[in-house]
Amino acid sequence: MLKYQIIANEIEDNIYSNDLPQGTKLPTVENLASEYKVSKSTIVKAIESLVSKGIVYQLQGSGIFVRRRNRSGYIDLNITQGFTTSLKEFNITSKVLEFNLIRADEEISELIECNINDEIYLVKRLRYIDDEIMCYEEAYYKKSIVPYLTKEIAQGSIFEYLQTALNLNIGFSDRYLHLEKLDNNHANLLDLTPNDPAMIVLEQIYLSSGVCFNVSKLVYNYKNTQFFLQS
Amino acid sequence: MLKYQIIANEIEDNIYSNDLPQGTKLPTVENLASEYKVSKSTIVKAIESLVSKGIVYQLQGSGIFVRRRNRSGYIDLNITQGFTTSLKEFNITSKVLEFNLIRADEEISELIECNINDEIYLVKRLRYIDDEIMCYEEAYYKKSIVPYLTKEIAQGSIFEYLQTALNLNIGFSDRYLHLEKLDNNHANLLDLTPNDPAMIVLEQIYLSSGVCFNVSKLVYNYKNTQFFLQS
Repeated sequence: MLKYQIIANEIEDNIYSNDLPQGTKLPTVENLASEYKVSKSTIVKAIESLVSKGIVYQLQGSGIFVRRRNRSGYIDLNITQGFTTSLKEFNITSKVLEFNLIRADEEISELIECNINDEIYLVKRLRYIDDEIMCYEEAYYKKSIVPYLTKEIAQGSIFEYLQTALNLNIGFSDRYLHLEKLDNNHANLLDLTPNDPAMIVLEQIYLSSGVCFNVSKLVYNYKNTQFFLQS
Repeated sequence: MLKYQIIANEIEDNIYSNDLPQGTKLPTVENLASEYKVSKSTIVKAIESLVSKGIVYQLQGSGIFVRRRNRSGYIDLNITQGFTTSLKEFNITSKVLEFNLIRADEEISELIECNINDEIYLVKRLRYIDDEIMCYEEAYYKKSIVPYLTKEIAQGSIFEYLQTALNLNIGFSDRYLHLEKLDNNHANLLDLTPNDPAMIVLEQIYLSSGVCFNVSKLVYNYKNTQFFLQS
C-alpha cells in the first residue's frame, strides 16, 4: 500500500471510530500533515482518495467535511475491493464450490483481456453474510498476475490476499448490472425460488497500471442484500 | 458551471467524438493548459473530475490515459445528473403523472433534511428510453432551493433546468438500492407483471455546499434497463 493510502485509511478509521457526524469539519491540510507527520502533498492525495470514496467532501475556501456514513448492512458499490472491506461489521464467509486452473476460452479472454488458452484460475463460491447467503460468485483470475492461489486462500478474502501477500495495487473496476428472473440452477444455489428477482453483476477489475486481472460474475440474493452508492 | 467543469466537458467530448480507445495517452497537463488557454490548476481540477467520473485514469510519472467508454445503452450509475446526461444517444422522455406543491411529512422531511410542513414540489413521472418505459419516479424538491418548477419543465429534463436556468451547483448523491418483487400498482405503471423483478432506488441529491435539495424514489423496469458503474 502506498503512503497516502495508509494515511487515507487512518483518517477514515478516525472518522468512524469517533463517530463524526455529516458536516464535521476536519483539520486543514497543513494541520493534518503535521498530525500524521507526512508531507502536504501526501495529505492532498489521501483527501482526494477519501473524496472519491465518498468519505469526505471539500468546499473551496472553507475546508474538508465529513460525509454521511454508509448505512450499516448496505454493500458499498463504490468500493472495488471486496465485501470484506465494505461490510466490516459483519461476518463475511465463503464456501468454495469449485477451484480450478483452466484455459481462457473466447468469452473469458475477451472479458479479462488475455489470449485464448492463457492460464486462468476459476473460483466458484457462495458468499455469506452472518451465515445468510449473499451471492453466488464465479471469478476468473489471470495466472500471469496472480501466480499462486489455492482453495484455502479462496475460502477467505481473496482481495486481502492479493493486496497483502502479493502486494498488488488494485486500481479501478468496470461493473455491468442488470436484473433477471432467477433460473433453476441459481435459485437452487441461493436457496431461493425460480423466477425470484436477481441482480446479475459482471465485474472487470484492473491494477492501477490499467491491466485487467480479474473478471467475476455475481448473482445476488435479493433477500439478503442491499446496496449503497455515493457519487 | 465552473471553468474546470467546462474544460472537463470539452476534454470528455473530445475523447468521445474522436472515439479514443482505452489506454490512449492524453497530452500533459502543461500541453492541455496551453491548448485550452487556461491555468494548469484548472486542468488539474478538470482531470480530477474526469478521474472521478471514470473517463480517464492517471499513472504517476507516465501521464493521463483514456478509460474504457461506457457501453452504449447502460445507465451510468456514476453520474448523479439524470438520465439525459448518461444516455445521450437515446431519446429520453417523461410523462408527468402528478405535479403538486405539498408540505413535507415526517418521512420526507427526514430524507430531504427539512422541517415538517416545509414546501416541497412533488413530481411523479414515467421516464422513457426510445419510447420504452425505463422507470417510475417519485421526486421531491425543496421549494426553498428550487423556487420555481412547473409541470411543463418536469416534462423535460429537470436537472438540465436546475443547472442551466437556476444555476444550481449539483455536488453529490447518496443512493440506496435493493431488489423487490413488483407490486400490482407498480407493475401496472411499468406495464409489467406483478412479482416481476424490480430495482428500487432511493436517491438523496446534494448541492456542492452539502445541502440536500432533492430526494427521489425510482422503480426500474428490469426489461428496459441495465446499469454501468466505474470505480
